[in-house]
Amino acid sequence: MINNLLINFAHEHKKVVPISLFVAVLCLCLVIGHLLEENRWVNESIVAILVGCIAGSILLLVTKGKSSHILTFDEELFFIYLLPPIIFNAGFQVKKKQFFHNFLTIMMFGVIGVFISTSIITGGSWWLFPKLNFLGLSARDYLAIGTIFSSTDTVCTLQVLHQDETPLLYSIVFGEGVVNDATSVVLFNAVQKLDVSRLSGRAFRVLGDFLYLFSSSTALGVLTGLLTAYILKALSFGRHSSVREISLMMLMAYLSYMLAELLELSGILTVFFCGILMSHYAWHNVTEISRITTRHVFATISFIAETFIFLYVGMDALDIEKWRMTKLSSGSLMGIYGCLILLILVGRAAFVFPLSAFANSMMSRRAESGSSITFKHQIIIWWAGLMRGAVSIALAFKQFTFSGVTSDPVNATMITNTIIVVLFTTLVFGFLTKPLIRYMLPHNNGTRRNTNHEAAGTPGEDLNLPLLSFEESAATNISRAKESLSMFIGSPAYTIHHYWRKFDDAYMRPLFGGPHHNRSRC
Amino acid sequence: MINNLLINFAHEHKKVVPISLFVAVLCLCLVIGHLLEENRWVNESIVAILVGCIAGSILLLVTKGKSSHILTFDEELFFIYLLPPIIFNAGFQVKKKQFFHNFLTIMMFGVIGVFISTSIITGGSWWLFPKLNFLGLSARDYLAIGTIFSSTDTVCTLQVLHQDETPLLYSIVFGEGVVNDATSVVLFNAVQKLDVSRLSGRAFRVLGDFLYLFSSSTALGVLTGLLTAYILKALSFGRHSSVREISLMMLMAYLSYMLAELLELSGILTVFFCGILMSHYAWHNVTEISRITTRHVFATISFIAETFIFLYVGMDALDIEKWRMTKLSSGSLMGIYGCLILLILVGRAAFVFPLSAFANSMMSRRAESGSSITFKHQIIIWWAGLMRGAVSIALAFKQFTFSGVTSDPVNATMITNTIIVVLFTTLVFGFLTKPLIRYMLPHNNGTRRNTNHEAAGTPGEDLNLPLLSFEESAATNISRAKESLSMFIGSPAYTIHHYWRKFDDAYMRPLFGGPHHNRSRC
Repeated sequence: MINNLLINFAHEHKKVVPISLFVAVLCLCLVIGHLLEENRWVNESIVAILVGCIAGSILLLVTKGKSSHILTFDEELFFIYLLPPIIFNAGFQVKKKQFFHNFLTIMMFGVIGVFISTSIITGGSWWLFPKLNFLGLSARDYLAIGTIFSSTDTVCTLQVLHQDETPLLYSIVFGEGVVNDATSVVLFNAVQKLDVSRLSGRAFRVLGDFLYLFSSSTALGVLTGLLTAYILKALSFGRHSSVREISLMMLMAYLSYMLAELLELSGILTVFFCGILMSHYAWHNVTEISRITTRHVFATISFIAETFIFLYVGMDALDIEKWRMTKLSSGSLMGIYGCLILLILVGRAAFVFPLSAFANSMMSRRAESGSSITFKHQIIIWWAGLMRGAVSIALAFKQFTFSGVTSDPVNATMITNTIIVVLFTTLVFGFLTKPLIRYMLPHNNGTRRNTNHEAAGTPGEDLNLPLLSFEESAATNISRAKESLSMFIGSPAYTIHHYWRKFDDAYMRPLFGGPHHNRSRC
Repeated sequence: MINNLLINFAHEHKKVVPISLFVAVLCLCLVIGHLLEENRWVNESIVAILVGCIAGSILLLVTKGKSSHILTFDEELFFIYLLPPIIFNAGFQVKKKQFFHNFLTIMMFGVIGVFISTSIITGGSWWLFPKLNFLGLSARDYLAIGTIFSSTDTVCTLQVLHQDETPLLYSIVFGEGVVNDATSVVLFNAVQKLDVSRLSGRAFRVLGDFLYLFSSSTALGVLTGLLTAYILKALSFGRHSSVREISLMMLMAYLSYMLAELLELSGILTVFFCGILMSHYAWHNVTEISRITTRHVFATISFIAETFIFLYVGMDALDIEKWRMTKLSSGSLMGIYGCLILLILVGRAAFVFPLSAFANSMMSRRAESGSSITFKHQIIIWWAGLMRGAVSIALAFKQFTFSGVTSDPVNATMITNTIIVVLFTTLVFGFLTKPLIRYMLPHNNGTRRNTNHEAAGTPGEDLNLPLLSFEESAATNISRAKESLSMFIGSPAYTIHHYWRKFDDAYMRPLFGGPHHNRSRC
């Protein structure tokens, strides 16, 4: 019947059929995800991928092997509509105190880590692929493969970790996840621009490009965020309607991403910092209703976009055309998969453990021994970054297809490789994540001590943090108040962070909005 | 500089430039609209159209007369992405008590009215256009013109009327606006299917088609709404996350529209009734946070979509290509505009005054003399429906262009005619609306009496209505409680509505959610 519909309406409603089907599958996915929430093995991403696979198989049967996906993959769709809300929401919901407190560690993992991982994966595949009879990739392709498989997807681990139980770990995994996404996209674009024929001595150029992209994108995001905050404060929209406030926040966030893309900067970084600035200033200038609405609607849109992507990956895994195009034997294909997954494991281990040791030594010099990264934590950080997700897929499509279509067997093989790696890491590694973390971090035991230490780092701001829910805030504020008092009597930890807070209180908040810290009033 | 950008990025970022520009203009529009809110002449639509015109002129200058709009009009964009949220929000925010209490009157205006208005405009243009040297339109075109210019845009009037001061008037204008949109789209589609060569005796067929479309679309909307309510109630998502609840409501609403389009029903009617059902049942099954969020996010999306459309109309008015294509003298063009506006005025008067008289006589028979439609109200209802808006534009593009492009001079003329009529009615009639209503209905004077009468009609439900804001509900609930008590001692008004309420309490609410009326417990 669906087949008939497809034919009947193909000319008249060319978008109605796929959109209806996709939305229906999305709804199904939501319901199944909810029902399986208590399950100890699966998570959102796994559910979406599996539902996608099932929908793909049904579609294959109905269309008699013609097609397994409803929508053809459009990297534009991904980079223009799906990615911006996900990254903006990450910035908007990030616990800023934790994020900035561990800023150096996060940046180290997210930036230096990607460089290390990219070089290992690029070098490894350059060395191994020809041995597996997989030829035909250019130097640029190998560099792209390095960045494609260096972008992690930490959603799965974050669903298992608890922000209140292991704040240091959570903020590192979360922060690294976002910075890592941004870094790999920026690096991917830097590699694209590279003139590979004159590669010698140009590594410096890539680094320069990277630093320029990184700093100017961040600046643009900060500026847009501040502008939004200023407009909201100066005009105090809320007097008349919260609809305007919400619209303005949504539109400005999107505009920041688009402007960055227009100026050939990294939209991801821009929209991430725009999100942080908006939740730090702009969010305080709007009515209570707008605060609740924005917080939840950004989370909702991000959630839908993520589910959408994983559903798509599940469906695309069954795209028979691409499988047929590959000219390699199944033996060498298995070899390639194994090789890629091995490189991912090694590439990540190569920076997580050394950089953790470095971070620990830095921290012990700063006499904050309690917040060191234990070996168990290092393993979890390593594990959390093994999953590959939406960004990998999108970058692979950008590198190896033309508007989602490819006729070259080598390119088709790289697309299927990416999909297999994403499926394998998400399903197998994802499956093992919950049990692993439960084994490594038994609840309310040992890790609790860290909480006090971390939460006490910089008191005051937590009181001004966007509340997650009504009930939560009331209960936690009391305990936080106690912590901040004991902290204040103890060690006031004069760091960059402290001076920033002073500056923030004295100049930024009066201009751009947001409540004042209690501490600065003492 | 924009010109350079346009050329540089045309191949690489073909969507980035227009989207960025459009979003920036939208933001500007929001800020200007806010600043002018206190102004007694302008309203949202006028601001958006004027900003669109200005942006269009700047673009014309920058591109040296090549193009005045950023995006080419895509009727798909309008019918798939912009219209559904606007109509869903109308259903979701409608004051159900008022709407259903005046259901018959609203239906009379919205359905019979469109039929009368369509026949007058079709007949009139058929008779007058050839006399103005405007030839080349087919019978189907004339029928389409009738429906195109029968769809009203009441946004402008609703911004001036106050729901609490003139509830009867507000609910009729609001309800008619929605039903009218739906009716004209359904009628437009029915006319499209008509085999015009065998027109004789087929008027009955159009009516049959119309009734089928109307009833099955409504049924689909009701079913989707009930299904959503049932899923939300049975699974009680809120225990885990409000994100899933909000996602499900958004996706199901959209799905209802898409399903209707897929089954060749009227998506507008479906999504409207889906909105009503969702706010009546589903909305009560979600957490407090989801309620606030959904209420405001639907309003926001609808607001953005509306502004988007009016902005577009403003830009398109300066599309020089279409103007050049017209082969008529400016004299006959003015004649056509005048003729169309005259027909709109006459076509609307031809049903508002007779139907009002009929409604009054029906009401007096039901011994509810207080809620009759006074002559002043009739004039306001007549005036409120004179504006033409987004739906007219979209239908005109659907009838007279192929994907927004036309090369036929007659069709190009009809497009520019529609744009001129929309601009004229929105700007001139819209401009006069605020002063007219202030003159006809001086605040807090005379109309107040009606309020008590209406608000007392069916007490109880108001208490369960989605709250508009925290402060408001507390204050109004007390006065409403008083009203409902005096009402209960007075006349219990046994109507269909009363029996429906009993049925709702006994069977529907226990199954699909929503609080119980106090009255049924007495």
